[in-house]
Amino acid sequence: MTRRTITGFSNPTVKFLRSLREKKLRRREGKFLAEGLRLLTDARESGMLPEMLVMASGRAPHPLLDELEAAVAAAGGEVVEMDEAILAKVTGKDNPQAVAGVFAEFDTQLATIERTTAGIWLVAQALRDPGNLGTMLRTGDAVGAGGLILIDDCADPFSVEAVRASMGAIFTQRLAQARWEEFLPWLRSDAGQLVAASLRDPTDYRQAVYQAPCFLLVGNESQGLPAAYEAECDLRVTIPMRGRADSLNAAVAGAVLAYEALARLEG
Amino acid sequence: MTRRTITGFSNPTVKFLRSLREKKLRRREGKFLAEGLRLLTDARESGMLPEMLVMASGRAPHPLLDELEAAVAAAGGEVVEMDEAILAKVTGKDNPQAVAGVFAEFDTQLATIERTTAGIWLVAQALRDPGNLGTMLRTGDAVGAGGLILIDDCADPFSVEAVRASMGAIFTQRLAQARWEEFLPWLRSDAGQLVAASLRDPTDYRQAVYQAPCFLLVGNESQGLPAAYEAECDLRVTIPMRGRADSLNAAVAGAVLAYEALARLEG
Repeated sequence: MTRRTITGFSNPTVKFLRSLREKKLRRREGKFLAEGLRLLTDARESGMLPEMLVMASGRAPHPLLDELEAAVAAAGGEVVEMDEAILAKVTGKDNPQAVAGVFAEFDTQLATIERTTAGIWLVAQALRDPGNLGTMLRTGDAVGAGGLILIDDCADPFSVEAVRASMGAIFTQRLAQARWEEFLPWLRSDAGQLVAASLRDPTDYRQAVYQAPCFLLVGNESQGLPAAYEAECDLRVTIPMRGRADSLNAAVAGAVLAYEALARLEG
Repeated sequence: MTRRTITGFSNPTVKFLRSLREKKLRRREGKFLAEGLRLLTDARESGMLPEMLVMASGRAPHPLLDELEAAVAAAGGEVVEMDEAILAKVTGKDNPQAVAGVFAEFDTQLATIERTTAGIWLVAQALRDPGNLGTMLRTGDAVGAGGLILIDDCADPFSVEAVRASMGAIFTQRLAQARWEEFLPWLRSDAGQLVAASLRDPTDYRQAVYQAPCFLLVGNESQGLPAAYEAECDLRVTIPMRGRADSLNAAVAGAVLAYEALARLEG
């Protein structure tokens, strides 16, 4: 098996890998980083292999890493070794066991979403926190959703933070990005119930009737959903708030709603 | 109203404020930082005023800030102004509108928990992420829980990150910290149902019977709960997983469970 070894900090591959931590450069390259053996193994089990696998020269052997390396090489990918200190500069972590993979970003056009393949789809509008975004992907996997549709200006789903928080769901959930003006006509072009997690509507989320394919829409962390967006929804449901705060964490609200919809759709 | 103005970076108050961003130093001082006008206003509305209020000399006036300043001064607290650049060093943010308050850490002994004051209590074991911890406090407020009990080695609830993620719930929820060996006898000293969010037990969380006061226990982000802890619980419930992952984000699992318990206890 051929491995390339990098010994210098100024190597172009090192610069390329470091550039994938920045949104603008990531977008230009059309690639993203996934870090950690567990995440890369999840990817492989979902049929996704990195184009480039990066690891430390001095690492301890690990059977899962050997399998991963063999699979990447067999698929024509590149395997790169580098000094621990250089790898630490790439991953931002002092961990000789660190391993990272470079993947091509997925096509995130709405047209790639086949809505009949799942009963639930999560939709987030102007979600700004990459951790929340990754957590929503993870929740989507857990409820058997088809994927996550990102509306308007959201955090980058291909950021290291979002990929990490997804715990591998970035590789199993479909992902789409669209403006509201594009999403709404697409949604209405076929069957689909659009449900808003509302802060205004009195309908309790446990009293509502959910219908597949059900699109569960949560809004921005501090603003919630624009009233005009809510008005376009087929159903507006509220999660009860018994304390002094008036909202939940966005990823939490999405999960509470998604689990209720799952139980009702399966029940 | 007397205000003290700080003009030098090496002022002891600046050093003190910066020290509150570090766990060890925070613990030594027994104080913590809450940042942002919204959080400080939440605190005031919950009857909590900072011992010291810190803001930039060149800030724009704001009625809520004026009220806060008056309340702090009336309660014998200290109001400190400093140059924007110095404040930025304290808060880590380049924001001339930044404002921060110093609070005394709360007594987090189990003895401070009055279990009959609420139907639901959240319990987290070895929760390592301060964002998850703050989110659990926020969820606790939302479901009308009494508070959050932290078992074994958890993230510091008084870290800036946890306080921020709590969205003010750090000031409304009771908070306790204990080892498992201390928690279990305390729990058993009176009525209380201990419910584990389990990855192993086949009981669906929607089929279970919850009883107040209900203590909902979630485990560490990567390990879940120790089997021995689960065995001590009155009830072990599982949240269905329909995808390829085997667990939810810990704060999400706690929220899904807490909302189910809320509906059943109120229903």
